[in-house]
Amino acid sequence: MPNPTAAMLVIGDEILSGRTRDANMHHLAQELTKVGINLREVRIVSDDRDAIVSALNALRAGHDTVITSGGIGPTHDDITADCIAEAFGVHIDVRDDAAALLQAHYDRRGMEFNDARKRMARIPDGATLIENPVSIAPGFTIGNVHVMAGVPSVFQAMVASVIPTLTGGAPILSQTLRVDRGEGDIAGPLSQIAADFPDLSIGSYPFQQNGAYGSNIVVRGSDGAQVDHAMARLAELFS
Amino acid sequence: MPNPTAAMLVIGDEILSGRTRDANMHHLAQELTKVGINLREVRIVSDDRDAIVSALNALRAGHDTVITSGGIGPTHDDITADCIAEAFGVHIDVRDDAAALLQAHYDRRGMEFNDARKRMARIPDGATLIENPVSIAPGFTIGNVHVMAGVPSVFQAMVASVIPTLTGGAPILSQTLRVDRGEGDIAGPLSQIAADFPDLSIGSYPFQQNGAYGSNIVVRGSDGAQVDHAMARLAELFS
Repeated sequence: MPNPTAAMLVIGDEILSGRTRDANMHHLAQELTKVGINLREVRIVSDDRDAIVSALNALRAGHDTVITSGGIGPTHDDITADCIAEAFGVHIDVRDDAAALLQAHYDRRGMEFNDARKRMARIPDGATLIENPVSIAPGFTIGNVHVMAGVPSVFQAMVASVIPTLTGGAPILSQTLRVDRGEGDIAGPLSQIAADFPDLSIGSYPFQQNGAYGSNIVVRGSDGAQVDHAMARLAELFS
Repeated sequence: MPNPTAAMLVIGDEILSGRTRDANMHHLAQELTKVGINLREVRIVSDDRDAIVSALNALRAGHDTVITSGGIGPTHDDITADCIAEAFGVHIDVRDDAAALLQAHYDRRGMEFNDARKRMARIPDGATLIENPVSIAPGFTIGNVHVMAGVPSVFQAMVASVIPTLTGGAPILSQTLRVDRGEGDIAGPLSQIAADFPDLSIGSYPFQQNGAYGSNIVVRGSDGAQVDHAMARLAELFS
């Protein structure tokens, strides 16, 4: 059975402007791989309504699961929740369950639950909340889309609570062989091995070290015996 | 005049599997910002022909410039050049100018210019070469698409040679005000300032430090007087 697929939508001008280097994508990629879900595509778009809605609709139609990051805070540039509602064609407003969580949080801290903070309780009809143990304002799940915060500590907490709810696949195993020869030397036989193991993904990642060329050959797949077999063939050829 | 727009297409299973953390996107975002080109969208796809072709066609139709990264080496998983030719509907084969560069390079090193290495001389008809001072195998430009290597040192060298050929815009200026208050406190007035300066992009990026909430407010735009004016309003309100 093929592994389930996922896509990620990152909403953030700060990454596209080069101000911030993305960390959430790398974290999510690693966590999905652990549970046998194939991250197949990532899109990064700016804080623009049309761009968010159309990217979301393309990704949710093409993949089993979509995870979004960013744009669910209290400020004017936080438009993700409203865009998700638009993409799904559902109503959105401040919802009682989310508002109650936030009201209690601000009461405890003696802070005002003002209109800006109420934006963080805007949840599309039909969505279920994703817990935020770090700063309370929840994410939400609607259909196959999981909407999470962009702040890395919050994003990671939300990923940790959503991943166990997803249908994973056979764990994707990965083995790497380091070869101290340039890719051009190994490409011919490597291509033959890749053709012999159509169920495995065999990639070659070149590097340069102290002026010499080398390559890491990475074999990935969910059948451990096949991965071992391919690694043995590679070792025989290139070691 | 609005700033020109750009998109990036990253081709790489190694990023989607979490094996590698992308560096090229962050570099390109910073370099484009310096010359007043707005990076509006990034897509990361796997080494899959259909995924590459359809992402490329969507991005080149929607943006002034597209830059791709990855998949132009000598191994079986390097399929970018062929996908670009397919997207543009043009013929592709080993081209004499690219082959001559590589032949001379391998002759100098006493290495064989074998079939695998000849893959790196496959250039779509109508494309012009992008120089690779690091490892010789060229990138290429076709239409508004610039095809570059994924190895960061090579990618950076190719970006450096292509950027001066692009039509830039007014430099995008950026100023940041650090505010030691939570986003929920500042969101109301901030939203008013954003509405008062429709030509500026005003973003709020929350952080937590020693248990206290704060936010960096970033004002971006190409009109320096407007940026200064908005910053003065912000400082008045939040300092």
